Amino acid sequence: MGKVVSFGEIMMRLSPPPFQRFTQASSFDVVYGGSEANIAVSLAHLGIPAEHVTRFPENDFGKTAVSELMKHGVNTSHIVYGPERLGVYFIEHGASVRASKVIYDRAGSAFAHIKPSMFDWEEILKGAAWFHWSGITPAISQGAADACYEAIHTARKLGVKITGDINYRRNLWQYGKTAIDVMPALIQESDIILGGLADFENCLGIRESDFTKACQAIHKKYPVITKIVTTYRNTIDGSHNQFSSAVWNGNALLTSKTYDLTNIVDRIGTGDAYMAGLIYGWLKNKSDQDAIEFATAACAIKHTIPGDVSTASVEEVEELVRGENIGKLLR
Amino acid sequence: MGKVVSFGEIMMRLSPPPFQRFTQASSFDVVYGGSEANIAVSLAHLGIPAEHVTRFPENDFGKTAVSELMKHGVNTSHIVYGPERLGVYFIEHGASVRASKVIYDRAGSAFAHIKPSMFDWEEILKGAAWFHWSGITPAISQGAADACYEAIHTARKLGVKITGDINYRRNLWQYGKTAIDVMPALIQESDIILGGLADFENCLGIRESDFTKACQAIHKKYPVITKIVTTYRNTIDGSHNQFSSAVWNGNALLTSKTYDLTNIVDRIGTGDAYMAGLIYGWLKNKSDQDAIEFATAACAIKHTIPGDVSTASVEEVEELVRGENIGKLLR
Amino acid sequence: MGKVVSFGEIMMRLSPPPFQRFTQASSFDVVYGGSEANIAVSLAHLGIPAEHVTRFPENDFGKTAVSELMKHGVNTSHIVYGPERLGVYFIEHGASVRASKVIYDRAGSAFAHIKPSMFDWEEILKGAAWFHWSGITPAISQGAADACYEAIHTARKLGVKITGDINYRRNLWQYGKTAIDVMPALIQESDIILGGLADFENCLGIRESDFTKACQAIHKKYPVITKIVTTYRNTIDGSHNQFSSAVWNGNALLTSKTYDLTNIVDRIGTGDAYMAGLIYGWLKNKSDQDAIEFATAACAIKHTIPGDVSTASVEEVEELVRGENIGKLLR
Amino acid sequence: MGKVVSFGEIMMRLSPPPFQRFTQASSFDVVYGGSEANIAVSLAHLGIPAEHVTRFPENDFGKTAVSELMKHGVNTSHIVYGPERLGVYFIEHGASVRASKVIYDRAGSAFAHIKPSMFDWEEILKGAAWFHWSGITPAISQGAADACYEAIHTARKLGVKITGDINYRRNLWQYGKTAIDVMPALIQESDIILGGLADFENCLGIRESDFTKACQAIHKKYPVITKIVTTYRNTIDGSHNQFSSAVWNGNALLTSKTYDLTNIVDRIGTGDAYMAGLIYGWLKNKSDQDAIEFATAACAIKHTIPGDVSTASVEEVEELVRGENIGKLLR
Amino acid sequence: MGKVVSFGEIMMRLSPPPFQRFTQASSFDVVYGGSEANIAVSLAHLGIPAEHVTRFPENDFGKTAVSELMKHGVNTSHIVYGPERLGVYFIEHGASVRASKVIYDRAGSAFAHIKPSMFDWEEILKGAAWFHWSGITPAISQGAADACYEAIHTARKLGVKITGDINYRRNLWQYGKTAIDVMPALIQESDIILGGLADFENCLGIRESDFTKACQAIHKKYPVITKIVTTYRNTIDGSHNQFSSAVWNGNALLTSKTYDLTNIVDRIGTGDAYMAGLIYGWLKNKSDQDAIEFATAACAIKHTIPGDVSTASVEEVEELVRGENIGKLLR
Amino acid sequence: MGKVVSFGEIMMRLSPPPFQRFTQASSFDVVYGGSEANIAVSLAHLGIPAEHVTRFPENDFGKTAVSELMKHGVNTSHIVYGPERLGVYFIEHGASVRASKVIYDRAGSAFAHIKPSMFDWEEILKGAAWFHWSGITPAISQGAADACYEAIHTARKLGVKITGDINYRRNLWQYGKTAIDVMPALIQESDIILGGLADFENCLGIRESDFTKACQAIHKKYPVITKIVTTYRNTIDGSHNQFSSAVWNGNALLTSKTYDLTNIVDRIGTGDAYMAGLIYGWLKNKSDQDAIEFATAACAIKHTIPGDVSTASVEEVEELVRGENIGKLLR
Repeated sequence: MGKVVSFGEIMMRLSPPPFQRFTQASSFDVVYGGSEANIAVSLAHLGIPAEHVTRFPENDFGKTAVSELMKHGVNTSHIVYGPERLGVYFIEHGASVRASKVIYDRAGSAFAHIKPSMFDWEEILKGAAWFHWSGITPAISQGAADACYEAIHTARKLGVKITGDINYRRNLWQYGKTAIDVMPALIQESDIILGGLADFENCLGIRESDFTKACQAIHKKYPVITKIVTTYRNTIDGSHNQFSSAVWNGNALLTSKTYDLTNIVDRIGTGDAYMAGLIYGWLKNKSDQDAIEFATAACAIKHTIPGDVSTASVEEVEELVRGENIGKLLR
Repeated sequence: MGKVVSFGEIMMRLSPPPFQRFTQASSFDVVYGGSEANIAVSLAHLGIPAEHVTRFPENDFGKTAVSELMKHGVNTSHIVYGPERLGVYFIEHGASVRASKVIYDRAGSAFAHIKPSMFDWEEILKGAAWFHWSGITPAISQGAADACYEAIHTARKLGVKITGDINYRRNLWQYGKTAIDVMPALIQESDIILGGLADFENCLGIRESDFTKACQAIHKKYPVITKIVTTYRNTIDGSHNQFSSAVWNGNALLTSKTYDLTNIVDRIGTGDAYMAGLIYGWLKNKSDQDAIEFATAACAIKHTIPGDVSTASVEEVEELVRGENIGKLLR
Repeated sequence: MGKVVSFGEIMMRLSPPPFQRFTQASSFDVVYGGSEANIAVSLAHLGIPAEHVTRFPENDFGKTAVSELMKHGVNTSHIVYGPERLGVYFIEHGASVRASKVIYDRAGSAFAHIKPSMFDWEEILKGAAWFHWSGITPAISQGAADACYEAIHTARKLGVKITGDINYRRNLWQYGKTAIDVMPALIQESDIILGGLADFENCLGIRESDFTKACQAIHKKYPVITKIVTTYRNTIDGSHNQFSSAVWNGNALLTSKTYDLTNIVDRIGTGDAYMAGLIYGWLKNKSDQDAIEFATAACAIKHTIPGDVSTASVEEVEELVRGENIGKLLR
Repeated sequence: MGKVVSFGEIMMRLSPPPFQRFTQASSFDVVYGGSEANIAVSLAHLGIPAEHVTRFPENDFGKTAVSELMKHGVNTSHIVYGPERLGVYFIEHGASVRASKVIYDRAGSAFAHIKPSMFDWEEILKGAAWFHWSGITPAISQGAADACYEAIHTARKLGVKITGDINYRRNLWQYGKTAIDVMPALIQESDIILGGLADFENCLGIRESDFTKACQAIHKKYPVITKIVTTYRNTIDGSHNQFSSAVWNGNALLTSKTYDLTNIVDRIGTGDAYMAGLIYGWLKNKSDQDAIEFATAACAIKHTIPGDVSTASVEEVEELVRGENIGKLLR
Repeated sequence: MGKVVSFGEIMMRLSPPPFQRFTQASSFDVVYGGSEANIAVSLAHLGIPAEHVTRFPENDFGKTAVSELMKHGVNTSHIVYGPERLGVYFIEHGASVRASKVIYDRAGSAFAHIKPSMFDWEEILKGAAWFHWSGITPAISQGAADACYEAIHTARKLGVKITGDINYRRNLWQYGKTAIDVMPALIQESDIILGGLADFENCLGIRESDFTKACQAIHKKYPVITKIVTTYRNTIDGSHNQFSSAVWNGNALLTSKTYDLTNIVDRIGTGDAYMAGLIYGWLKNKSDQDAIEFATAACAIKHTIPGDVSTASVEEVEELVRGENIGKLLR
Repeated sequence: MGKVVSFGEIMMRLSPPPFQRFTQASSFDVVYGGSEANIAVSLAHLGIPAEHVTRFPENDFGKTAVSELMKHGVNTSHIVYGPERLGVYFIEHGASVRASKVIYDRAGSAFAHIKPSMFDWEEILKGAAWFHWSGITPAISQGAADACYEAIHTARKLGVKITGDINYRRNLWQYGKTAIDVMPALIQESDIILGGLADFENCLGIRESDFTKACQAIHKKYPVITKIVTTYRNTIDGSHNQFSSAVWNGNALLTSKTYDLTNIVDRIGTGDAYMAGLIYGWLKNKSDQDAIEFATAACAIKHTIPGDVSTASVEEVEELVRGENIGKLLR
């Protein structure tokens, strides 16, 4: 099977021990993650050949982040290096009525210093089955946006399937452009996008209050896009969410089962586990309905796994899809 | 704004790591806390100038407890010292159907050895806006009861607003007097009291089965008291409580929203977070309804914070009052 | 009161820190346990003299496992030793929708190398009130099955009450015999058995779809058996179970209260806590109904205690039976 | 072999994690120990039947402390219980040039509340081979001193060998008597004492500058005492000590090998491991020279074991006496 | 006594657990420190009123760093805030033959964004006894250098004693100026400087191979400087250093005792503990010889304390100066 | 550069937290290692392409062990899998006078079940530069010995350089053959061997008391062997060793510098770090003297790194060879 290639920034994630606040912590747990890389790792655990492309500093933290990808079986051979820093993000996990708190400290990272032509996308994407990008990357710097466009454009040219997670974050976009300036060019060459109504408005200028209508409008304007996926999260509190998803496939809006997720362990990366599940499903030629069921179950399991990445196996996800052995003690 | 002054004992709190029982622990987590001091700390985090008055041993544990207050921004300049020990309390956190277990080891503490005139209350309370005491203090020793009376009496004389948390605990009161011998003199000079029907019976000899009637009876007998507050806790199990509160303000009994609190992290100090919220609300001239809503939300958040004290900010509490961002992941 | 004697294998249990997966762990928590020994420990905490009989390796891990039994007050004076290894089992605790995972590594243990006549059962059981065995033991090796039969037969001869937890596990039974070859001889000399419909089919060849009918059929064939107990667990997810139990006492099927168990801390050993509760109840001459209520409450509490064994006291269990102080903060 | 009986207080010991100071600790490691009990535990690990007699509170900490003794195989059947507290001591381990710091919080313990006749010494000491006491016990309270005298006197009467570790500590002796008032009556009925010149002066009023002369003077005045042992510690710094010992046996002063102890892990209880080694040696009829060599090696090993007690085996100690495998990696 | 004011950057320090390398760590211990602030903290523990001036981000990490200063009793009332980040530094502690490794990630910090006139030095230094700065500050940014000059100049004008730790670090100085451009103006208004021959060459252009001659040359050129201090460290390995110091006081070069420091716990901040000891000594009017003995002992103790700051008391330092109780177990 | 291929068993290593004994541990630290794999990992960190060949169980522990190799950049593509277990070894680290203790639990592992022809050595070794084996492998089982012979024989045929670490361990060799039966056939086809006089006697039947003479005798009998290496360790105690090495290269015995290693962190795998250093040196065409200096320094650094493997870089090792920055704090 052709590999899946993802592109995006990886940061050091620092979090206080369970339930502690930033101001209480005498230590931070450390993992390394980023939305697109999390997807590559999840796919590797689902048995899909995956490669992640990024830019790291030439220090022990860049080295450790690479090691972590390698540990999960993700190909790292086209990662490039520079003299700058590794971005950091701090997460204080919420619980019950208390919200989670994220403090980003990513300015000036090796990734933000990406310049066009730093990556040989023809070489990287040769023979690949899939390319995944997210709206975080073009929001970081002009260079990152340019490199992302190069990747998408090359993938399109080479006939590689493209998914984009729009993922609009207002606090990014500090380099003088807005999402609406940059995103349409990236989105219009993607086959499948993940997003919600606010993303469509902010990144495409398409304002609709109904998801199906929005999808129709997007498809009309950007006919390359054939499927649009969205997720629904009802946050009852920090330990209890309900989660489901839907896909518009040109014909209809198909909706997944809803999971009632109590005793949440780690909410970070659940959307990435979802995206990896989708890519897995379509690569394995599942129907759209089966693909979103698989992806939604993969997302549900990630809520129980500490860290940024899902290590769930195909068997675990499919058991949950079938409703078997949920939370059982298997001897 | 004038400072809030609190007076009461601080103990070393030792607790096994999450979920372990006393008999299993190979280490104890250590924090320092006490009902009245917890209120001072919460107020400091809410931006209110707060001072705590107590008596500590002249050893490293007294020193560390002072440092903890200082760390939170609580003024400690009128704390006095003696040669005795720091009281200790051990807490085994319950979970699900298992109850929490507290073992007190507080006899002979530096606080219990307080004697009248050890504190210059005129000096301490000069310019203060508020004085807070609780029914724990007069239960500890005759000297502590006497000092508490001195403080209340001085505060009254200086026109400082006074709150008292009656907090009747049968296991205290070992020094030869009962609550009914001592408490009325303290309560009758307080503006606002926090208590329930059992407290009123044990400390004031007022036995009523209806809260409003009890309040009317108290106010009739002790006209200085203008507001009476009470809290309602429905303990479904050790991880799941429901919490609300009410205030009788001379005219009516106003009731707060009820919070459904699952996945409780630390139940200790939640009442103190409530009391701090109330004092904050009234100092900020909130209406009685708004004050108890703020206080109830502050209390709800404390259930998610490990340790004795709440570090919630005004913004966090008000967001919860408005029902916004509950348990969300804020990027 | 005569002692309760249990017989069975004890393993080293290794588990990742809370919520971590096997593949994430940089340390494992270690305890020592086994179904029958867990019962002996629970009984010791309920004030019943208890002795456990097993075979351990002559190394530091056999020594530590003995120390753990001694720590809980279990008599270890008839344990024998050999040159082999201590069995190990690994448990990855599930949470929410994720199942728990157990990996056994018990082949070749000192217990599996038991040979007939290694234990002087006449000496061990002299004056005992009760003997307990489980279906795990005869599944391990021919020698273990033989020793188990010797124990049961001797107990029967000496008038010692016998309980057997059938506990059929398909993955055991690797030494060339099946449960149906071995179990009937052991079961037929037991006074009370714990099991479900699948156990009866696999171990006795009695296939019924109704529990009461199955009990009647068993009693008819094996008249020594006078009571048959079963437990009901509804696994909503890994953090939330519902649990109840029933006893058929020759006349009727009595059913216990159902507990709704959220925020489960450790599911392992809950069945053993149940069995210990039952033995306690009958030794104390409780009615069948009271015995299963006590046992069910004991089981409920074990869900909140980390490790293999319950350390609940009689007072704690009886409070839960009465529905008092559930999850309260007791000062 | 007849058992060794020890008598003395056991406290909860709380210590910051390695290298942290009291004022830095967010947790304390907890063990349970006391000089005489540490000796009983060491002896149990050396294969000698040992019993410890003490008085504990009837709470979870008394219960845990008993469990710890049971875990090590020490007989606890004559321990008595009362309503008071368990004494606590805090230890901040020194390192390099920094001294260790101990804060005692032992006033009002269940042990301090011992009264005469609480223990049936005839019953306890029947058939015992050895009784051990220390000078800490008579320093705690009049009742403890009285009970200690009862024990010594009964042991003497029953022909049980008696060792006393004089262990003078100026900060104890708060109940109105001084060591010189109380100790001579206890010492004069002991067969063997452990002490140094300062102990002899403070407890017996015998002031000598030469150890052999002091021994001769003591023996002359108290002819029951036949051997006097002393230890030499040269504290180069908190991580590096040199240790040796000597015994005066009526004829000569025999001196042991000196150990150079670097990278010390835990200095507490090293003297107790020494005393246990001595008792072991004499019970096994070693020569005086061999006995102090064994004891000195046992003491050296304790410096490498965290906690209050030595768990060294006879084989480990004898290997060190022979100078074999010191610090080796044994596969 | 007038306060000591220090000025400099505070960073978050992240370090792997003891002995682990960066690439192995699954958590980092977190403290907050910086050379000048470490001195203020040490002085507070020595009983000297201390204030630290800096600029922090307006987030939870700035808030926590302030809390840490407050906890130690350092006045923080003139700290200013901005929107930028908190600098971070990572330290991998060496051991034995392995060197320690530091990775700085301090670019773009709130401190680096300091601009002239952000601090009201007249107000801050009014009534102060001492001002301390280091060569790290002017190396960070032009604004920081300017503010440092303002502070020194104001201090000089107000008659406040000034110490400067030259502390030349080649890897700083990235903003377009070199040390020799900036440092002379700062040094020439300081009363006392701490530095070595390389510092003098790099920051003052004075190249000498003899320390006394260098001092004479400096004093000749900058007559305001009356004392020059230097430290000697012989790094045998990462766990074993030898340390001493010297002061040139215009007349002679006085040399301190040398400490042989084995089993080093934390080498960071030892120079700051030294500087604090010196300031203490001179504030207390010790002789130059006594001042460096005190400072050298304070530095020695810091090697045993984890974290950036020394919490040694005057008593502890003076005991070490007298050579008493070194590494003893004090009961 | 051609890759280095190593072949050997990997086990799960479980060790109590620093300084604790097996009987004290409530958790074990877990890493995965084995002599030959440790060498592959070290080489990968030295920048040499390395592949490890082994057989793992098809469970989460086999999977985690593979991930660990991948994390360090070791090629794992020819590892095979089977249904058996992963071997385990337990290590209690010694300290000061206390020896380390290892308990092996490796019987029945997936590696021990290796059969001939399970590995396609022609394919694996094609283009390789080096093959490394140790005497542990042929001691495990006949199948492992056979596979090891196949590998060596194929390597010889393909012109791949071969190193063998004789590493005789008496406690292995349980399958009916002795070292002298099996080892000569393996050794005689190796280019370079690592061993000492006892190894030569036990595995080759060559008994000499002088190392050079032994080397000459070996070379005479097995002319393929051109270099013989040995290491010297003087174990002063568990925290303090002295280490050096020598190589006989047909002409002379060259001896390395001796390192005095205090404050040892982890002694396991130091020999493997040495061997990796040698292979690195020769692959880089260092002289024999330079190769053993590099290897000895690499070994010295491993004593400071927790776990089985060295992660030292070429730069770190060469700095130590040059005697630079030993234990320094590098900013």
